[in-house]
Amino acid sequence: MKLEVELKAPADLDEARRKLRELGAVLVVEGEEQLDVYLQHPCRDLALTDEALRLRKRREVASLTYKGPKVGGKCKARLEVEVAVSSFEDALELLKQLGFEQVAVLRKRRTVYEVGGFRVYLDEVEGLGCFMEVESLLEPSSTMSIEEEALRLARLLGARVEEATTKSYLEMFLERWGDVKGGST
Amino acid sequence: MKLEVELKAPADLDEARRKLRELGAVLVVEGEEQLDVYLQHPCRDLALTDEALRLRKRREVASLTYKGPKVGGKCKARLEVEVAVSSFEDALELLKQLGFEQVAVLRKRRTVYEVGGFRVYLDEVEGLGCFMEVESLLEPSSTMSIEEEALRLARLLGARVEEATTKSYLEMFLERWGDVKGGST
Repeated sequence: MKLEVELKAPADLDEARRKLRELGAVLVVEGEEQLDVYLQHPCRDLALTDEALRLRKRREVASLTYKGPKVGGKCKARLEVEVAVSSFEDALELLKQLGFEQVAVLRKRRTVYEVGGFRVYLDEVEGLGCFMEVESLLEPSSTMSIEEEALRLARLLGARVEEATTKSYLEMFLERWGDVKGGST
Repeated sequence: MKLEVELKAPADLDEARRKLRELGAVLVVEGEEQLDVYLQHPCRDLALTDEALRLRKRREVASLTYKGPKVGGKCKARLEVEVAVSSFEDALELLKQLGFEQVAVLRKRRTVYEVGGFRVYLDEVEGLGCFMEVESLLEPSSTMSIEEEALRLARLLGARVEEATTKSYLEMFLERWGDVKGGST
């Protein structure tokens, strides 16, 4: 279980990569394809309660993640509980048997760097565009100061921080494309 | 996903072991301690729908299993979907965040043999006693004939097949001990 502190903003990913290299950032993941299936709860509207349940597939790894309601300002903090699961398909089937329904399927290509106590995600999200996420690697002792540092780093890397958003990709996706079941999964 | 065909009956486990050895059965698991947490659905009474959701911990391994309604006679067939999860504690926390509630905690010691297309479980279940379960390793092409074979094998191994039950340990446990939350987990 962890409390996420992250900042998300639209960004030019080539510019960000260049600056990350200049800063001596460490490349952790290069261009990984991720498939995220978001699920609706059988008796609780997770959009209204600001929660999310996500089943993710990346390479041969699958994980199930619960995200609690967001708190905080430009940066976003929320409870997150995640477990790795042995099979994406079986986990999806198990959840469907329990009444969970697929509400959206998001595909993205993610590159990850680490620099100075932060993890920086460079995401190309199908149908939404390019974004940078800056996430603290530290336990948030003082969330506020970490938020300020994350903001400063994102600005340095050329993110359009004036367009920073606390919205999840799921919320952006549903706003732009509506409630698409994405039945192809 | 699999369709379980299994027969469960009270048994003298020492006698069963002796006969299994005589039959040349292969010992697969010896005296493994298992902790099973059964969960109630936030908006569906799984006792009424004859479903079950179980989170199991054994040694360092954890798994989450959905069991569909039972069909069949003395033997029991039901849809089962299972995934391994990376952490018992995190999976339990994730499910609780989604509104699932712990209804019972079962502890048992399980020894497993395999013989002639069947897996034989010898279970000492805390608070319930000793049972033998005979489960087919084959895909059920003809469920009925496999049921008959399972019954014959169980009888041969000394199980009290006239007391065979299609009840799950959870059902037996709740009948005998009521709705115990087992909060010590």
